Amino acid sequence: MLHIFLLFSLIFTSTNVLAQDFCVANTASGIVTPSGYPCIMEANVTSDDFAYSGLGVPGNTSNIISAAVTPAFVGQYPAVNGLGLSAARLDLAPGGVIPMHTHPGANELLYVVHGHITCGFISSANKVYLKTLKRGDVMVFPQGLLHFQINAAGKRPSLAIVTFSSPSPGLQILDFALFANDLPSSLLEKSTFLDDAQVKKLKGVLGGTG
Amino acid sequence: MLHIFLLFSLIFTSTNVLAQDFCVANTASGIVTPSGYPCIMEANVTSDDFAYSGLGVPGNTSNIISAAVTPAFVGQYPAVNGLGLSAARLDLAPGGVIPMHTHPGANELLYVVHGHITCGFISSANKVYLKTLKRGDVMVFPQGLLHFQINAAGKRPSLAIVTFSSPSPGLQILDFALFANDLPSSLLEKSTFLDDAQVKKLKGVLGGTG
Amino acid sequence: MLHIFLLFSLIFTSTNVLAQDFCVANTASGIVTPSGYPCIMEANVTSDDFAYSGLGVPGNTSNIISAAVTPAFVGQYPAVNGLGLSAARLDLAPGGVIPMHTHPGANELLYVVHGHITCGFISSANKVYLKTLKRGDVMVFPQGLLHFQINAAGKRPSLAIVTFSSPSPGLQILDFALFANDLPSSLLEKSTFLDDAQVKKLKGVLGGTG
Amino acid sequence: MLHIFLLFSLIFTSTNVLAQDFCVANTASGIVTPSGYPCIMEANVTSDDFAYSGLGVPGNTSNIISAAVTPAFVGQYPAVNGLGLSAARLDLAPGGVIPMHTHPGANELLYVVHGHITCGFISSANKVYLKTLKRGDVMVFPQGLLHFQINAAGKRPSLAIVTFSSPSPGLQILDFALFANDLPSSLLEKSTFLDDAQVKKLKGVLGGTG
Amino acid sequence: MLHIFLLFSLIFTSTNVLAQDFCVANTASGIVTPSGYPCIMEANVTSDDFAYSGLGVPGNTSNIISAAVTPAFVGQYPAVNGLGLSAARLDLAPGGVIPMHTHPGANELLYVVHGHITCGFISSANKVYLKTLKRGDVMVFPQGLLHFQINAAGKRPSLAIVTFSSPSPGLQILDFALFANDLPSSLLEKSTFLDDAQVKKLKGVLGGTG
Amino acid sequence: MLHIFLLFSLIFTSTNVLAQDFCVANTASGIVTPSGYPCIMEANVTSDDFAYSGLGVPGNTSNIISAAVTPAFVGQYPAVNGLGLSAARLDLAPGGVIPMHTHPGANELLYVVHGHITCGFISSANKVYLKTLKRGDVMVFPQGLLHFQINAAGKRPSLAIVTFSSPSPGLQILDFALFANDLPSSLLEKSTFLDDAQVKKLKGVLGGTG
Repeated sequence: MLHIFLLFSLIFTSTNVLAQDFCVANTASGIVTPSGYPCIMEANVTSDDFAYSGLGVPGNTSNIISAAVTPAFVGQYPAVNGLGLSAARLDLAPGGVIPMHTHPGANELLYVVHGHITCGFISSANKVYLKTLKRGDVMVFPQGLLHFQINAAGKRPSLAIVTFSSPSPGLQILDFALFANDLPSSLLEKSTFLDDAQVKKLKGVLGGTG
Repeated sequence: MLHIFLLFSLIFTSTNVLAQDFCVANTASGIVTPSGYPCIMEANVTSDDFAYSGLGVPGNTSNIISAAVTPAFVGQYPAVNGLGLSAARLDLAPGGVIPMHTHPGANELLYVVHGHITCGFISSANKVYLKTLKRGDVMVFPQGLLHFQINAAGKRPSLAIVTFSSPSPGLQILDFALFANDLPSSLLEKSTFLDDAQVKKLKGVLGGTG
Repeated sequence: MLHIFLLFSLIFTSTNVLAQDFCVANTASGIVTPSGYPCIMEANVTSDDFAYSGLGVPGNTSNIISAAVTPAFVGQYPAVNGLGLSAARLDLAPGGVIPMHTHPGANELLYVVHGHITCGFISSANKVYLKTLKRGDVMVFPQGLLHFQINAAGKRPSLAIVTFSSPSPGLQILDFALFANDLPSSLLEKSTFLDDAQVKKLKGVLGGTG
Repeated sequence: MLHIFLLFSLIFTSTNVLAQDFCVANTASGIVTPSGYPCIMEANVTSDDFAYSGLGVPGNTSNIISAAVTPAFVGQYPAVNGLGLSAARLDLAPGGVIPMHTHPGANELLYVVHGHITCGFISSANKVYLKTLKRGDVMVFPQGLLHFQINAAGKRPSLAIVTFSSPSPGLQILDFALFANDLPSSLLEKSTFLDDAQVKKLKGVLGGTG
Repeated sequence: MLHIFLLFSLIFTSTNVLAQDFCVANTASGIVTPSGYPCIMEANVTSDDFAYSGLGVPGNTSNIISAAVTPAFVGQYPAVNGLGLSAARLDLAPGGVIPMHTHPGANELLYVVHGHITCGFISSANKVYLKTLKRGDVMVFPQGLLHFQINAAGKRPSLAIVTFSSPSPGLQILDFALFANDLPSSLLEKSTFLDDAQVKKLKGVLGGTG
Repeated sequence: MLHIFLLFSLIFTSTNVLAQDFCVANTASGIVTPSGYPCIMEANVTSDDFAYSGLGVPGNTSNIISAAVTPAFVGQYPAVNGLGLSAARLDLAPGGVIPMHTHPGANELLYVVHGHITCGFISSANKVYLKTLKRGDVMVFPQGLLHFQINAAGKRPSLAIVTFSSPSPGLQILDFALFANDLPSSLLEKSTFLDDAQVKKLKGVLGGTG
């Protein structure tokens, strides 16, 4: 029946164009566009490109927030390029907190792998949506809205996996955005109504100047 | 300082339009559009709408495939409406298999909560991308491509959480699509090259006619 | 030559379907979808629907921030529904400030009609982009990033017109999001590192509880 | 083996949500949104909804342009709702012309079923792309650009099928847009540099006033 | 009146930026992104780039399926890059069949140029939509769903032109995906419930291993 | 408290991937894709990239149309790349006119900075939407539809700022498209019904040939 195979080959040979089923990022190309990175040529893509083990490693929570974020965005995990998805791992030791932050470029879906996590986000209408989640629960956080996660009640560590609706969700942590750069204190205070002492204290902690 | 509050209120009163930060689905409206369901009015949305506990319940794997899929698509979890995200839970008993299938409407990202899962997908170029994942690993499956998951090596159950790049990813299971309806056997055999005996056997198992 | 007209009419009669050149919002329908509001039937649309005079009226800046925002989002200006655009007017008296805020759903382009305005935004990498603009200058603020505008140097009022890449850009004002609702102070302080006294002071000013 | 079927049914019952594989338009609902019409409930959709015979009927070319356009947009062919596609049939008798026009909402791909058709479009850079196509040839016309089709050389009728990248491509025929309405002649002449006599002549032919 | 021309030129000179009316693919650049190929510089684009004659050549149907697919995807027809459209030609000799397949990346609209074609697709709900089309009929096939075309009744060859809602629709032919690669038979049988003999037979025909 | 800062740094170091908050165009790269230009590396982006002063300079209206268009599209203002926005300045001396034109790639929102401007657009249904705007008024013009602006009533110059829903809106001016190129007069006359004398006159004025 070999002839059948050969005939089949002939019929569809002309369809062997780049199908763009996927577009594993060539992050070494020095090129990025609004739609993402250029693709590695399909012939060079292997199964290993599609799988990623980085989220299996616990983050180090021996720090001031007793928490850690381990991203699998397109920079770490090139296979998500162009797929409208990425992920991250949240480790929260007892009392740990992922501080108030936004993702300017994506919606987020959080799944609790173990432990309890108190999650909150605030809408444009300034309404607070607050919920304490247990193992197996999910919660969504709409794009661009301030939100946080705290292992408030727990005496044990908590683990969550979050996924995003973009390979590059971005991450703007409120305290870092306000206090860890050279934004002049006078402008910062006028635009946030925070007291000068409060601003200077947190600039001191976070290395801000100005 | 009450006057400050009052003044603030006045300044921004006019911005109290529907912000569409989110659009929790009104699945009871009888209306669906290409962009999704109409939104529940924001005044009626509560924290409970954003969280969902259905993925915390193990699926029943006492069946022929020793596996179960528990979806959190927009139908089960209305908060994902318009957010470009949804999720599902995969339970795989030892030897269990999520049969060959596609999601016509979304890319997929799988995270292994515990156990080992052998995952494969096949590209438009007919190349197989195959990988055995362990706890904490992730893998992506591009939209519309045939793929499957098997707890092949394990002696223990496996659990995975998958997320999709759409609130309505769709799910076309190959055997159900081919054998669980009234597609005439003659057309099915001509278009798949499967033998008549094979077709009739699986139609018998899956309740197909024709 | 009347017959020519008649013939023309016949030829193209069948194309008189809803062309969806535009979709002026029926904001009274009680329906909103992820893609926006239902459209007013084309027969009922007039020239007046496409023009809007609300941005010609100066905002009242006799308030604590010496500034005012006047939106022309889809709620005020139904013609922008589905067009990927909306607008707002910023009035800044001398010393006036549009406090630190984000637009979760849109990029922004600001045009200075008169006066001087110092504008700043902060990226996900916590870098500050700061610029003092004069009459005729434009500046863009990417979606979801914290930004502010101040009439810092001026002794005269300033006026800016901003446009957005969405009919519903949303508006999350930092102080309102943090201090004008019932987010418990303990969670707020843990997630922002602000001092209790600072939190209580601003909750007092802005009417927050908890 | 009946039990296998029953078990299968149980496993996947919960996935029986609206899959939105497709969204056949309910054009009688009185509702249209920026993303299209609401969907007919899937239970009421039949094979007949997906097929359409209207393009099999030759258009009547016994008219001043010796040509006819027969659309299969979402208004005529509800199955294309939400699919990013629609179609039309172009009949061109010898000497027939589809006059200069644009599609404000879609790119176009033309296929010549029989005959010869001279096609042209003009870019934003005012460059003319002109080509005489024969049976089996295809040509694309980018969105919003002026273009026309003429059966110039032929002594026999020509037939083309065109497809669009939207269910609602729109159709703005230049002469109708300029001369078949109440746009005041003074404004028309100032904005087009056409002579008053020319304007009045074509307004007369096409029924324009003002 | 030459001065008028000169003045006009001056006024609009500054608009001579790349308009991106179109983006003819530079398929030789070695670069592809999620949004498609880089564009050939507009100065090098000619009328010949927009037209394509490859679909005018009948496919060779002297093969086991008595059918042939001739694509005009972005690889063959670079002008469709970025336009959300592409096309293909289907030749079906009497009894010919385009085997069961999906397009992971696009919806499809089929037009029958001549002959009769029996077309079917299967939804996520496993419902079969089946229709025998005649000359001039069209039918749509939603993205990612299994479908096939057969010249079942005909004694004469049939010809169809199909268009897609993407320049890169992809093409996954079921038998090739399952049997023409190195997917281990044990995994294939577990995930498809096909008998070992059936799998080995078709692997033999199609050159599969494992 | 230095240790706090150091710890913070460690926690989030791994998130320092390209966030793609923005993508300032590298217009010198020789590469353009359907989604826009490649981005300048974030380290090389400064505040000056986000601001643009070109719209502060009055256009020269000493010409035949007594008007001028000054664009801030992605070619002039690289910061808008990927942001779904761009802008332009319209100067209209008394009696000045922006001639009938379309933007094939974007919707438009016009704001009157000073003076009076009569604006009109024509829908696919050939209906005219006409409005005389005063200082502070806005009006939208849907994508791809013919429109114009005239300083008809005014004795003083008018100024408008327009924004677009794309960084590359395109600009097709009707007279230039018809008369300023080599489109053969015979084809032009057949496809527009304009008289030969009218065509030749305007070709003469605008430098057209053929």
